[in-house]
Amino acid sequence: MDGVHLLGEWYGCPAHTPEFRRAEALRALCLEAVRESGLAIVGDTFHQFEPQGVTGTVLLAESHLAIHTWPECGFVTVDVYVCNLATDNSDKADRLFRSLEAAFKPARRKFQVIRRGSADD
Amino acid sequence: MDGVHLLGEWYGCPAHTPEFRRAEALRALCLEAVRESGLAIVGDTFHQFEPQGVTGTVLLAESHLAIHTWPECGFVTVDVYVCNLATDNSDKADRLFRSLEAAFKPARRKFQVIRRGSADD
Repeated sequence: MDGVHLLGEWYGCPAHTPEFRRAEALRALCLEAVRESGLAIVGDTFHQFEPQGVTGTVLLAESHLAIHTWPECGFVTVDVYVCNLATDNSDKADRLFRSLEAAFKPARRKFQVIRRGSADD
Repeated sequence: MDGVHLLGEWYGCPAHTPEFRRAEALRALCLEAVRESGLAIVGDTFHQFEPQGVTGTVLLAESHLAIHTWPECGFVTVDVYVCNLATDNSDKADRLFRSLEAAFKPARRKFQVIRRGSADD
């Protein structure tokens, strides 16, 4: 099952926003970003850490989005993993990733792309 | 936020088991494996595809587990990502990963380890 996994680490993000600190706000941002990307939501769960910080995932028909925020460090990690069962979803994954990156406005970023499950593996 | 991300692709798994095909069975397997690893569950969501196949995540205090099964291909992908905030959770992540791998019995595997968010990045 051919797929692509985008891994981001975002440093120096302005951490005062509700999306950075609170689960409901981050969940709303993620669900909207997934919908706009054209990927299909089949479930989600988000957890609020106290006093701040969120961990959450959105299950996709195409695989998953996972995001973790550390407001005290201005730090976020994000994973967007999509499989290409019926069609190539790479562009949609990229759109989702860039949309979230634009929302968090990192000063510095680390980005990796991993191909997974290729037929020739 | 230093962390370690284990990525597995498992090929040639015997696909007749309930854990491979049904969301409730896979959820039970994952929750038990996380508990036995010593990692802390803070949420989970699993989705049943019809006629078979599952996608699911377990949110951890330390980050997340994500797993996707394709019984028609005997194929599974798994992600175990843990951050090392107060302590090094690498051994627990490895234990969780190996426990799930033992349950799925892949004939062939691809394995990658990625360090994320190191202080010197």
